[in-house]
Amino acid sequence: MIPAAPATPADQAPGGFPRLDLRAGRPVVAVDVGGTLTKTALVDGDGEVLEVRSEPTVLRSATGLLDQLGLAVADLAASHPAARPAAVGVHVPGLVDDARGTVLLAENLGLRDVPLRDQLAARTGLPVSLGNDARGAGTAEFRMGAARGARTAVVISIGTGIGAAVFVDGRLHDGDGFGCELGHMPVLVPGRRAPVVCACGGPSCLEQWASAGGIARSYTRLTGRPVRGSREVFDAARAGDEHAARVVGDGLDALALAVAQLATVLAPEVVVVAGGLSRAGAELFDPLHERLEQLLTFHRRPLLVPARFGDGAGVIASALRADELLEVLALPQQVGPPA
Amino acid sequence: MIPAAPATPADQAPGGFPRLDLRAGRPVVAVDVGGTLTKTALVDGDGEVLEVRSEPTVLRSATGLLDQLGLAVADLAASHPAARPAAVGVHVPGLVDDARGTVLLAENLGLRDVPLRDQLAARTGLPVSLGNDARGAGTAEFRMGAARGARTAVVISIGTGIGAAVFVDGRLHDGDGFGCELGHMPVLVPGRRAPVVCACGGPSCLEQWASAGGIARSYTRLTGRPVRGSREVFDAARAGDEHAARVVGDGLDALALAVAQLATVLAPEVVVVAGGLSRAGAELFDPLHERLEQLLTFHRRPLLVPARFGDGAGVIASALRADELLEVLALPQQVGPPA
Repeated sequence: MIPAAPATPADQAPGGFPRLDLRAGRPVVAVDVGGTLTKTALVDGDGEVLEVRSEPTVLRSATGLLDQLGLAVADLAASHPAARPAAVGVHVPGLVDDARGTVLLAENLGLRDVPLRDQLAARTGLPVSLGNDARGAGTAEFRMGAARGARTAVVISIGTGIGAAVFVDGRLHDGDGFGCELGHMPVLVPGRRAPVVCACGGPSCLEQWASAGGIARSYTRLTGRPVRGSREVFDAARAGDEHAARVVGDGLDALALAVAQLATVLAPEVVVVAGGLSRAGAELFDPLHERLEQLLTFHRRPLLVPARFGDGAGVIASALRADELLEVLALPQQVGPPA
Repeated sequence: MIPAAPATPADQAPGGFPRLDLRAGRPVVAVDVGGTLTKTALVDGDGEVLEVRSEPTVLRSATGLLDQLGLAVADLAASHPAARPAAVGVHVPGLVDDARGTVLLAENLGLRDVPLRDQLAARTGLPVSLGNDARGAGTAEFRMGAARGARTAVVISIGTGIGAAVFVDGRLHDGDGFGCELGHMPVLVPGRRAPVVCACGGPSCLEQWASAGGIARSYTRLTGRPVRGSREVFDAARAGDEHAARVVGDGLDALALAVAQLATVLAPEVVVVAGGLSRAGAELFDPLHERLEQLLTFHRRPLLVPARFGDGAGVIASALRADELLEVLALPQQVGPPA
């Protein structure tokens, strides 16, 4: 059990979690299922994060994961009798059909076609809302973080893979579940071929070039030297390793091209970079900025900023998601057969 | 003076203009200012196009153009006393600030910073709405043409340059005037450098590769042989000219890449290709389709279709624009200072 503030590793912001902007004003449970750790949190009706728990995710078993999540929700509720939760928000990494509440495919969790929303609702007796983690983290940044106040914004989460959330004129555009797939946008880097075909089958997906995982793989492929992650490649590039510099440069080229293309079509006011790679700081943002300047002419330059929320984004996003569900449930219900 | 139907060259649809979908039900004048010809049309309250006129555009003189348009509107109105126009819709090629009604820059017309909307309103005594031609033509396709019924769609107009209109969840997304600039999206074609820097200063804009003008210029640059237009290059490619085949292939590569990138981020249901190049028919659509299949994996495939409206799109768009203005003017006015 991890206390919420001020030292919880689940939030990068100093002082722990901020007070969340809840509209329904009722306590909620936030569940952030990750490929490694799962965090669950109880948030009271004023938006205070009362407690955050973190434990290794049960993988490759829908029943096992369901048991884990059901128990965590019950434990949190029992520990805080004054803040009885009214809803649960859940985010998972993978392809999610929000409308049906189904995990279509979550490779890192080893899940396929799991109706997690309704199963967890049956287990906990609470209304549950389920979504994709990158879109959720984007919503946290859009509502309360680095993109707050923008009408059109893109939040790019760069970690093992690349996920994104695209907001157009104030609304998340999910394209019936097919939109925002920035990681699988085909990009070409001058004079280079993509190191390997993407897991999705694409010939040259952005995430092969510019994700932390892609950068590490490209370096190993080029040098035969295994690395623990992209951090090592950035460090090697700074220390003068030419191969590392080339791999990092290619990744930045691809990312700048993708951002420039978004700037041309959507003209976002803000582009937020989230996820592990965003911690590279000026090492990422300075050269990215420079490359963008070379690609753009009359276009509107997006403000290019790091995410406000670090590892805590998932918990915040899930709490906001549960809150949005409570808002919808509070609306007068439509007369007619269920959709 | 050209009769509206059935032989007017201003419309490609057989039988002349369709009955327009007017919501306000009042007669309007449609003005389509082109780099070569300007068309003006009178549309009655039932959406019937009563008459279309076409004359060479007065270039490089804001006053001259204003005289031309004022006279055309007055003549049309005088010829049809039973259909007294209530508003004027105008589209021009170039950068337009819709909200202020100003032509910021129209290179082909030789105009810069012209408050055309208010000047024409003063001249005609009618309310006027002014917009960019590519976005207007897109709106015609979205409301009444090849993208009708879609929620998310992209209309790409390929002629001398490339313009676009992007509709997200039912609404045109103009990005405060900076969005939809697909022609100036940086794209890279494998193993190739852009033939010349774009007029906008960009190193590798889509319109340098894939517009009718770009294809003609690339061919001339490669072979030293001047051509009258992209049609000649397509014909030469079919006749076995390797240089022509390479230039056409590069253009298709670039266009397919741009469409694939839109499919990844926006997941449009429909992509409409309009403008002169769309008349290449299967010669354009078949290889474009093939290339898209190579780039996309799990992505939603957009329906790829030619525009419904040909040269008549501008007139239809301007009539719809005038109609939309009448709708807005009919709304209860907000109390308070003007925005």
